[in-house]
Amino acid sequence: MRDVCVIGIGQTPIGELWEDSLRDLAYRALQQAVDDAGIEKPDALFVANMLAPRLSSQAHLGALIASHVGWRGIEATTVEAACASGGTAFQAAVRAVASGMVDVAAVCGVEKMTDATSGSITAALATAADADYEGAHGASFVALNALIMQRYMHEYNVPHECFAPFSMTAHANAVNNPNAMFRKEITLETYMRSPVIADPINLFDSSPISDGAAAMIVCPLEMAADLSKNAPVKVLASATAIDTVDLAGRINMVDLFAARTSAQKAYEQAGLGPEDIHVFEVHDAFSVMAALSLEAAGFADAGKGVDLAQAGEIAINGRIPISTMGGLKGRGHPVGATGVYELVDLVTQLRGDAGANQVRDAQIGMTQNIGGTGATVVTHILARGI
Amino acid sequence: MRDVCVIGIGQTPIGELWEDSLRDLAYRALQQAVDDAGIEKPDALFVANMLAPRLSSQAHLGALIASHVGWRGIEATTVEAACASGGTAFQAAVRAVASGMVDVAAVCGVEKMTDATSGSITAALATAADADYEGAHGASFVALNALIMQRYMHEYNVPHECFAPFSMTAHANAVNNPNAMFRKEITLETYMRSPVIADPINLFDSSPISDGAAAMIVCPLEMAADLSKNAPVKVLASATAIDTVDLAGRINMVDLFAARTSAQKAYEQAGLGPEDIHVFEVHDAFSVMAALSLEAAGFADAGKGVDLAQAGEIAINGRIPISTMGGLKGRGHPVGATGVYELVDLVTQLRGDAGANQVRDAQIGMTQNIGGTGATVVTHILARGI
Repeated sequence: MRDVCVIGIGQTPIGELWEDSLRDLAYRALQQAVDDAGIEKPDALFVANMLAPRLSSQAHLGALIASHVGWRGIEATTVEAACASGGTAFQAAVRAVASGMVDVAAVCGVEKMTDATSGSITAALATAADADYEGAHGASFVALNALIMQRYMHEYNVPHECFAPFSMTAHANAVNNPNAMFRKEITLETYMRSPVIADPINLFDSSPISDGAAAMIVCPLEMAADLSKNAPVKVLASATAIDTVDLAGRINMVDLFAARTSAQKAYEQAGLGPEDIHVFEVHDAFSVMAALSLEAAGFADAGKGVDLAQAGEIAINGRIPISTMGGLKGRGHPVGATGVYELVDLVTQLRGDAGANQVRDAQIGMTQNIGGTGATVVTHILARGI
Repeated sequence: MRDVCVIGIGQTPIGELWEDSLRDLAYRALQQAVDDAGIEKPDALFVANMLAPRLSSQAHLGALIASHVGWRGIEATTVEAACASGGTAFQAAVRAVASGMVDVAAVCGVEKMTDATSGSITAALATAADADYEGAHGASFVALNALIMQRYMHEYNVPHECFAPFSMTAHANAVNNPNAMFRKEITLETYMRSPVIADPINLFDSSPISDGAAAMIVCPLEMAADLSKNAPVKVLASATAIDTVDLAGRINMVDLFAARTSAQKAYEQAGLGPEDIHVFEVHDAFSVMAALSLEAAGFADAGKGVDLAQAGEIAINGRIPISTMGGLKGRGHPVGATGVYELVDLVTQLRGDAGANQVRDAQIGMTQNIGGTGATVVTHILARGI
């Protein structure tokens, strides 16, 4: 098995990008990534996308995007695991390179959501849940997350305002990210007064409907110096685990079994533990997911993720900075692309390129990309200069 | 890089399976594959599916199926490349095992098409084509293939009846396959008199709308003897190549560039040529695709694929037997699952288990799985006892 590293990253700003088609967004991110790496073209492309078959009547994105970028003849495919598509596509690229079958692989997460009507977006997002056991009964994706948050608040006796720091930190960090959708701080009052979407989830507990694309280039560590002038960021661990898609099938709704299992696998692969992680890009699609991810990854005991946030330990200068470029809430959440954005943000931190949001001495970082209400979780640990 | 082999296969019959849900079909195929291999559960599952997000309102099939089979905690994801999804999912599994990151991987191709209305199926299949350049203008998937067939007939001066042997051979072979959708021979007269779907494609040039699931278990060759009593079938080559999704972007509509490129890559990986291949499972979604695949893979010159068929060389006892268990036309074509069925059929041949359809001394075989009108092509070469 060959060691794998990241040598290029790219991203479009996230927003309501009505002027850009799906393939154009992907093109921009990929072109930036190959330019950043200093390579001409990859041998393989792994596209992460969830919603194009429904919202854009377009499947088959691997060939569509690769040929649009001018890469006829390379291999290309789409990898999908609902909102965890980005992480699984990156994992597929890492595997392809590690196996020796591919030298240079590109990953592109792309999603175009805002052209559709809100009803069709809601229905499309519900395909991340269980269509027979949940969707068919009218449970929207936010409603399912609301059940989890309600249960968390009940189980651990946590009032709603305790979740505010997740949203406030994410929005504060987004201010300095030129690619973020919302570059505006919010106050506790703004958070508390925001309209309820699905009780207890309010507007600021939720990530936005967004368009965007992010891309990465990976290669064998041993080839990095020849291929690129960039300092390689090494992939120390890549681990996925699944749980039931339907909430009713879970043993414990407020213990993300798949997140815990994938974090354990990742720590084992890397020979590291939570104490070694300097920065953690979480999947804060809803505030409660950030808390549960911190707990599952070993940064807080069960029910104590909110305490970590309350204590300021998730801020840039805290013990375990999360959502450092704005997270899903502030940066935006183009679902299929999100896992790649998380990784791009992490690489930015590990390269020391995060500007005002730089986590000091960030050498080792982790991402956790969550599909559905915790059914698929992909954990990656990356490091610089190891 | 570790050598990879197949130690288990499973499949449901193909047909209009209204009694079985998507997840139940997958369960049946996977359970058969793990039973065949003699293992308890895999470390990873790669699902191949194209249409579930549209036709069943269900994305996120990796976790859905893995948890339904009872495999909480393993990793799982979906791989999609339109009708080539099966081949790319198998490739992902092979890579995962070759890389050393996964020991035992399962692949499951599953598609449930017949519950939907024909209009929504036609629209869903069109997502394999280019939504902006083709679908938006009303071009159905069969219409695009009709353009290719028309061009082939014009370019090489081939009358329609020359394509009949593809359909007749496939249907003749399906008779002996208990899992095939159509177990009935057809005559030249039946073929010639069948209704036109999209001129010049007639009913018997086309593969059917089907439900079905097929599954495989792969592991490192070095572990095969410990894990399974089955004689391992070794993966000698696994290669994908892409071309533009839209026909208008192609350099030559009747030369499948992606098929030729992926075959070349595969021959190179295996150190073999067309002369070494004993059996070839082609992607005969439409008759012309079988001809083009034979040509692209080096079994016939341009425009001569039909001659090979006319001469009887594609029959079980011919020079290069194709569609040996009925192909897409006779066995059926549950699109996302088809690539896995092709591989399962090939393994059946290489194991010598093909009964009345057994290709004599089949030691090395090839599959070619085609996505869209030739935009993504995945070629695999497998061998027994090497």
